[in-house]
Amino acid sequence: MSGWLTGHGVSAGIAIARAFRLKEPDLAVARRTPADKEAEVRRFECAVEKSRRDLEKVKEQAARELGEDQAAVFAAHLLVLQDPELMDRVKDNILHQGMSAEFALKEAADTFISALESLDNEYMRERSADVRDVAKRVLGHLLGVQVPDLSVIREEVIIVAEDLTPSNTAQLNRKFVKGIITNGGGFTSHSAIMARSMEIPAVAGTQTSLDRIGDGTLLIIDGQEGIVIMNPEQAVVKKYEKKKAAYEEYQAGLAKFAQLPTVSADGCAVRLVANISAPSDADNVLQNGGEGIGLFRTEFLYMGRRQLPTEDEQFAAYKNVLERMKGKPVVIRTLDIGGDKQLPYLNLPKEANPFLGFRAIRLCLKRPDLFRTQLRALLRASTCGNLKITFPMIAALQELRQAKQLLLEEKENLVKAGIAVADKIEVGMMIEVPSSAVMADVFAKEIDFFSIGTNDLIQYTLAADRMNKQVAYLYEPFHPAVLRLLKTVIDAAHKEGKRAAMCGEMAGMEAAIPVLLGMGLDEFSMNASAVLPARKLISQLSKKEIGQSMDQMLQMETAEQVKQFISKHFPIKLG
Amino acid sequence: MSGWLTGHGVSAGIAIARAFRLKEPDLAVARRTPADKEAEVRRFECAVEKSRRDLEKVKEQAARELGEDQAAVFAAHLLVLQDPELMDRVKDNILHQGMSAEFALKEAADTFISALESLDNEYMRERSADVRDVAKRVLGHLLGVQVPDLSVIREEVIIVAEDLTPSNTAQLNRKFVKGIITNGGGFTSHSAIMARSMEIPAVAGTQTSLDRIGDGTLLIIDGQEGIVIMNPEQAVVKKYEKKKAAYEEYQAGLAKFAQLPTVSADGCAVRLVANISAPSDADNVLQNGGEGIGLFRTEFLYMGRRQLPTEDEQFAAYKNVLERMKGKPVVIRTLDIGGDKQLPYLNLPKEANPFLGFRAIRLCLKRPDLFRTQLRALLRASTCGNLKITFPMIAALQELRQAKQLLLEEKENLVKAGIAVADKIEVGMMIEVPSSAVMADVFAKEIDFFSIGTNDLIQYTLAADRMNKQVAYLYEPFHPAVLRLLKTVIDAAHKEGKRAAMCGEMAGMEAAIPVLLGMGLDEFSMNASAVLPARKLISQLSKKEIGQSMDQMLQMETAEQVKQFISKHFPIKLG
Repeated sequence: MSGWLTGHGVSAGIAIARAFRLKEPDLAVARRTPADKEAEVRRFECAVEKSRRDLEKVKEQAARELGEDQAAVFAAHLLVLQDPELMDRVKDNILHQGMSAEFALKEAADTFISALESLDNEYMRERSADVRDVAKRVLGHLLGVQVPDLSVIREEVIIVAEDLTPSNTAQLNRKFVKGIITNGGGFTSHSAIMARSMEIPAVAGTQTSLDRIGDGTLLIIDGQEGIVIMNPEQAVVKKYEKKKAAYEEYQAGLAKFAQLPTVSADGCAVRLVANISAPSDADNVLQNGGEGIGLFRTEFLYMGRRQLPTEDEQFAAYKNVLERMKGKPVVIRTLDIGGDKQLPYLNLPKEANPFLGFRAIRLCLKRPDLFRTQLRALLRASTCGNLKITFPMIAALQELRQAKQLLLEEKENLVKAGIAVADKIEVGMMIEVPSSAVMADVFAKEIDFFSIGTNDLIQYTLAADRMNKQVAYLYEPFHPAVLRLLKTVIDAAHKEGKRAAMCGEMAGMEAAIPVLLGMGLDEFSMNASAVLPARKLISQLSKKEIGQSMDQMLQMETAEQVKQFISKHFPIKLG
Repeated sequence: MSGWLTGHGVSAGIAIARAFRLKEPDLAVARRTPADKEAEVRRFECAVEKSRRDLEKVKEQAARELGEDQAAVFAAHLLVLQDPELMDRVKDNILHQGMSAEFALKEAADTFISALESLDNEYMRERSADVRDVAKRVLGHLLGVQVPDLSVIREEVIIVAEDLTPSNTAQLNRKFVKGIITNGGGFTSHSAIMARSMEIPAVAGTQTSLDRIGDGTLLIIDGQEGIVIMNPEQAVVKKYEKKKAAYEEYQAGLAKFAQLPTVSADGCAVRLVANISAPSDADNVLQNGGEGIGLFRTEFLYMGRRQLPTEDEQFAAYKNVLERMKGKPVVIRTLDIGGDKQLPYLNLPKEANPFLGFRAIRLCLKRPDLFRTQLRALLRASTCGNLKITFPMIAALQELRQAKQLLLEEKENLVKAGIAVADKIEVGMMIEVPSSAVMADVFAKEIDFFSIGTNDLIQYTLAADRMNKQVAYLYEPFHPAVLRLLKTVIDAAHKEGKRAAMCGEMAGMEAAIPVLLGMGLDEFSMNASAVLPARKLISQLSKKEIGQSMDQMLQMETAEQVKQFISKHFPIKLG
């Protein structure tokens, strides 16, 4: 059949190829009582062992093709296979409840999944996806059903699937997979994030039966507009081929900016750097022309594990990213756990409002054992590149002073012990709590740079949880109160001769870049893929001219007015 | 025995009297299987009926002696007795589990209590205290055990108890009960709040076995210092009699301020008003010299019920408070539900961070049915006194404009229908979200007054949940960022010729009053009992002089510095 489907464009670009339907294997399980319970347990253990071997292989493959960060999910899968609670429940189901291995696994996995999902916590929901993915794999082995393997694809296709699991995406080969259509998911789903990072055009959330698309159907997808066209006429194919060429030309046009410095039309230089979550992401930053790392989140080192990472593990990760960046600046943020990111093994009490709770520097200052370990690892790595350190969630001056004092003490200890530490390490702080924005003049005297974390700053300034849909209308980067606070912070930094950087999502927003440039922001830290478009945009803007309309913008009453002004005056389109 | 005990001073004043030990009745329940199950159910229903009659009586008594607000808790208790889930579980326990009525009740109540307590929500915890109190009462009737009745006390005593339930405090007669000592509880426990409102000296949290204090023991308690002295020597009694006289003289000295206007030593007038939660609280405000109501919280009308209050119910309450205040200004805040205050019957989804969630004006604008009902009730009451309306949690200008628009529409509807509405009703907004403090210049053009709600403003500015002990060190009214925002708001109001009022707890803090006066705050709204001390303090302060050191205070780096400055320069003591 022919026709159109619409969904969310979650990864830009055009693809024209034939459909590859990812069929969900039939893992239906009938209830039956096994004759020999002991043999049934062994059958289960054998399936686990096969799954373990699969996972080792796919983990290696992911590390090689997608980087360590993406491979980490399979380390988490391997942990699921070793989870004594889950495994014991399955065995108990077989031995004492008279269930078959398949049914026993399904019951245990479902119980775990619903317990994890009831916790209303992003981290736990991810863990439940892990359990689901692993259970499917083991079940496949038990039933002798082939779980689909995308790594075998050897012709250009567009994948059509209900949704892609981490196991699926790890097997994707960019050379052959030209596009992705998923029925479920949205902009922040796993498959969407993967598609963007692999630069594969993708449409998600089509919310329709994919039975409409037969294997081998000719498809066009527009990953910007969120459109899927089935069995297009020749004229339509022609039109999209042109559009594809134009897009690729635009992308290629960006490529020339990779080797250029970031300079505005009136000759003002700023720095474009990237946010990363794992050392291996650094390569992608360099490929995209990033001038450094503006935010290396260290949480990944602490998550998906059963205990704190050792000093040596951390040191290795910091050294790794510093060396990959070859002397370019790397800002590493100390642990920002708490809020929506929990570490079960710390056994922290549940909080009524975790975003207003015991997180980040607050936790680190009360757990100096944990914090000093991280600081030592950072200090030891400081000789491996251009390290800068930033402290998250500083709300009061005494917190900054305490954190700096601990850093100084650990530095002195290392020096005394004869361990090399860089002479000068720049130390900054995150501006993400309104109090620190208001007091930026005082803070600026005691740091080398500010990192403005707009995601948190906006949610606290508007008192609106950035993950709560009911108050999403308030979460607004262009709210004039936010702009005023940003200007206060940037001016305060400059008055003391310090740098103002931003590493919240706002720094990479096309519509925000002109405003931030006009305010005098020195450094923009964003997803690596946004660096080249930003550099091109800045090359077309006059910082001085924008600066002249800054007072006018700061006097506006609503975010709507600000956005209208931006769309009228600058060469961008508002999302 | 003689000796000292220490605890928290939770209600100031000295008392010297003999101990009245409130003995917990023995409500131990043995497990037994009743012979006649139907008869056992009837026995249970009979105890419920007796409890219902008790409660009706105690509710009336509380309404008469303590006011409607305090009586509301017994309305909640009566609801517990009618809870079909609880009652059915008890009957099911008797009929199908073979339990005795006593055991069946205990099992059902314990199940409810632990379910409610697990919800980690202040409102639900209060409900669990209700269930506990009611279950005790019914159990007393089942066992034929006399549950203590404090209303029979006819000599001067100091009550010594584990803790006081709402049922207990409703029976207290101020004439005879001179003091209260509770082993449990703290400053915000039910018994502490009641003691303060009844002006009975009290010490809480002695955390020691009250067996040490025999019935009839002579006691001294100092409700300021948190001291209990048992069997004091004559010299000690003399000393405390003097201290008591001095305290009463100080209180009497305050009394003369009841009839005076509030004027600083250099002749600047400000307004001292009070925060209340129920219409009957108004009498206490007038007795304490309050010049009006700065904040009437309307949540009590919506809580402890099963459905929304009708327009007429609300109208009656608003009319009541306006009439009681005899033309003095009354600021009524529209519904501020959500956050830590939930209405189970609205069935709102559970939020990850309720303080950053769907609360107050956010909810009201999405539920115009509910909001318009309240606005109509307010408008209809506007002819009964000096009504002003304030909107809570305004974060963006469009919210204020929408709220004002709805008010205007309802006003026009009423006028069209021939219903009288005051010509001019002042409309203000709460400043409790940082964005509105930063944008106060814009908001000031569109309101008649600001009500600064410091409890929320501080928690959002510092990103620290005011109920979370782990981050209590950050919740700091004297943080320079808070002071700067307050000054911004007050200046913005004055620039437009509008009034700036404050109704957070900070407005009643002895240490904060000089600073707020110096900043130019026009109206201080506090607990009624704080009005006279505040008026006396202000009469000793020179607004102009303090104003001259304001720049210096606003340039300070930490709350500690601000507090040192205050204690050095002003005639107050810091708590």
